[in-house]
Amino acid sequence: MVRSLLVIGTGLVGTSVALAARRAGVTVFLDDIDAHAARLAEALGAGLAEPPRHPVDLALVAVPPAQVGPVLRDAQQQRAARSYTDVAGVKGEPERDVLRLAPDPAAYVGGHPMAGRERSGPMAATADLFLGKTWVLCPSERTGAEALASATALAEICGAVPLRLDSRAHDGLVALTSHVPHLMASLTAARLHEGPAGTEPMAGQGVRDVTRIAAGEPGLWTDIVRSNAPAIAAVLRAVCGDLTRLLAAVEVLAGPGAGARGEALRTVTDLLERGAAGTLRTRPAAARTPLRVVLDSTPGDLGRLLWTAAPYGVTADPAGTEFDDDGRLVVRLEVPDAAATAVVAELAAAGWSADRCAHSATAR
Amino acid sequence: MVRSLLVIGTGLVGTSVALAARRAGVTVFLDDIDAHAARLAEALGAGLAEPPRHPVDLALVAVPPAQVGPVLRDAQQQRAARSYTDVAGVKGEPERDVLRLAPDPAAYVGGHPMAGRERSGPMAATADLFLGKTWVLCPSERTGAEALASATALAEICGAVPLRLDSRAHDGLVALTSHVPHLMASLTAARLHEGPAGTEPMAGQGVRDVTRIAAGEPGLWTDIVRSNAPAIAAVLRAVCGDLTRLLAAVEVLAGPGAGARGEALRTVTDLLERGAAGTLRTRPAAARTPLRVVLDSTPGDLGRLLWTAAPYGVTADPAGTEFDDDGRLVVRLEVPDAAATAVVAELAAAGWSADRCAHSATAR
Repeated sequence: MVRSLLVIGTGLVGTSVALAARRAGVTVFLDDIDAHAARLAEALGAGLAEPPRHPVDLALVAVPPAQVGPVLRDAQQQRAARSYTDVAGVKGEPERDVLRLAPDPAAYVGGHPMAGRERSGPMAATADLFLGKTWVLCPSERTGAEALASATALAEICGAVPLRLDSRAHDGLVALTSHVPHLMASLTAARLHEGPAGTEPMAGQGVRDVTRIAAGEPGLWTDIVRSNAPAIAAVLRAVCGDLTRLLAAVEVLAGPGAGARGEALRTVTDLLERGAAGTLRTRPAAARTPLRVVLDSTPGDLGRLLWTAAPYGVTADPAGTEFDDDGRLVVRLEVPDAAATAVVAELAAAGWSADRCAHSATAR
Repeated sequence: MVRSLLVIGTGLVGTSVALAARRAGVTVFLDDIDAHAARLAEALGAGLAEPPRHPVDLALVAVPPAQVGPVLRDAQQQRAARSYTDVAGVKGEPERDVLRLAPDPAAYVGGHPMAGRERSGPMAATADLFLGKTWVLCPSERTGAEALASATALAEICGAVPLRLDSRAHDGLVALTSHVPHLMASLTAARLHEGPAGTEPMAGQGVRDVTRIAAGEPGLWTDIVRSNAPAIAAVLRAVCGDLTRLLAAVEVLAGPGAGARGEALRTVTDLLERGAAGTLRTRPAAARTPLRVVLDSTPGDLGRLLWTAAPYGVTADPAGTEFDDDGRLVVRLEVPDAAATAVVAELAAAGWSADRCAHSATAR
């Protein structure tokens, strides 16, 4: 049970946790090395900017990775809480620091709520930041049951999904899914910064999405890169190899010769195909039900079908459609399992007959 | 005036233009080297999958860059239309091919609607694809007034904003804002493809956004890279230089030595700062009105203020706030110009007094 919480560090994540805990009725105390930030968090309704009089159930250390060890040591020396966790985006370095510095490593479990925004500071905080997001917990060899239970309870209070990993596995995965993507966004956006004028009307949703997270705070991200440098270096080396081969291929295509163009094109296509496959790894596999619908040959009938089905998250692929011998169009739709019955009923009401085919699970 | 349109190539873009033109009452004919795709577009309500009996006002050649010249030559030889335009994402190569191959280069103007989706094919098409988007038109030295007027009218029929550029300037800008971002997304996603299992629950909105466009069709994108190779190579060379320096710095941070760590950290921060600056180049500068609001010291008052103002696109920065000598919190909000009057009224109704400060224009 977490009935009282001390948040040390009232930036975006600390203040968002505090707001979610307050909403759940938890008593929250706020502390920050910058008293102004703590008072802003209090003004936001995140709790009281004062020290607790008695040890709280849980202290959340929401500071950059390099500060977790020292801040936790100080908090434990003051007996601020019964259990402690943190929110740093790397977990190996804080764990090592805590094992080395803290008076009571058993009372600490590392944590990483996998949510953020490109804006930082308490005024970007929101109680809904963690809804449905993964919240990684990394027990060390010393972590005790009470610390793990309290941190798990806090993740659940925030609406997140707790996931246990060891700190080494965590750091390898976030290098791939968070730290290197951030650096790739920065590398892309840096080109825009140094490019010619006139990019704004030429920038569509694509480049905005690719670069969005590069707006994050450079100081915080420098510390994240520093503290997870080995795992990041391993991924960046592979990126650098791919980029070197890609650039060599594009240079061949930019040149006048006809010699190695075929191989250069294959190098480009190979990268694009591996990238397309990789995008499937960014979302959980969703089970989908295939439906078969036969349309008459009226122009626009397929348009009306897709329009009717679209609100249910239905997709269709040209490769899954065919015209039968009578010239009727046979369409194969992919429907999220949970919506299949509703879609069949909605299509029937509109005059179409939809048959369920064999079941399959795809990555979309 | 465009009263009749022939769309050659009924993929995502061609079919979306056809749907928008149909909605505006234009007579639309559909053609595709794959008769199945043209019939699907007809079934979607995008027009008639048959050849026009008389020359149409405008033919839209919506095929990959390398095919624009030959397809346009064939269409002009058949006198399919009075004017011709295309939608290829590069403009130099199609322009050169048309000047070399086409019977009537004066009847052609290059075009590039800056909109797309990560899904391809007619069944991903939507009449709203171009609403509010930039539609570049690149007149060559030979382009006549009627072709330019017809293509401009088509862009407007689709709800897009026409922008005239020469083809060389276009190709340099899209290398920066579209082609290299796509390749960076592919390089990032390729790491996920080859990475360990278990990335899905660790993948948040950040990496999904960075990699989303990498799901685009590899064959089409290979042709885009081929046809704009010189401009892409120039940008990739700069990226490669930045990445090489970044990787060297991260290797230093990953190593045991204390030697060059300060310089390595500065290299990382420098890239992150240039990236953050570059994100401002992906959206048009919006004029915003600063408002000054004085709050009392009730905990939660700032939270209620931001909650009230948020629906108007209001942002606030901790750096713009201060506590005055009486302990009251003075907040500086940035409000989109068009919403300023409404926000002042809404805040007044809720009991807060908001003063307009001097006007400024910022990039958010």
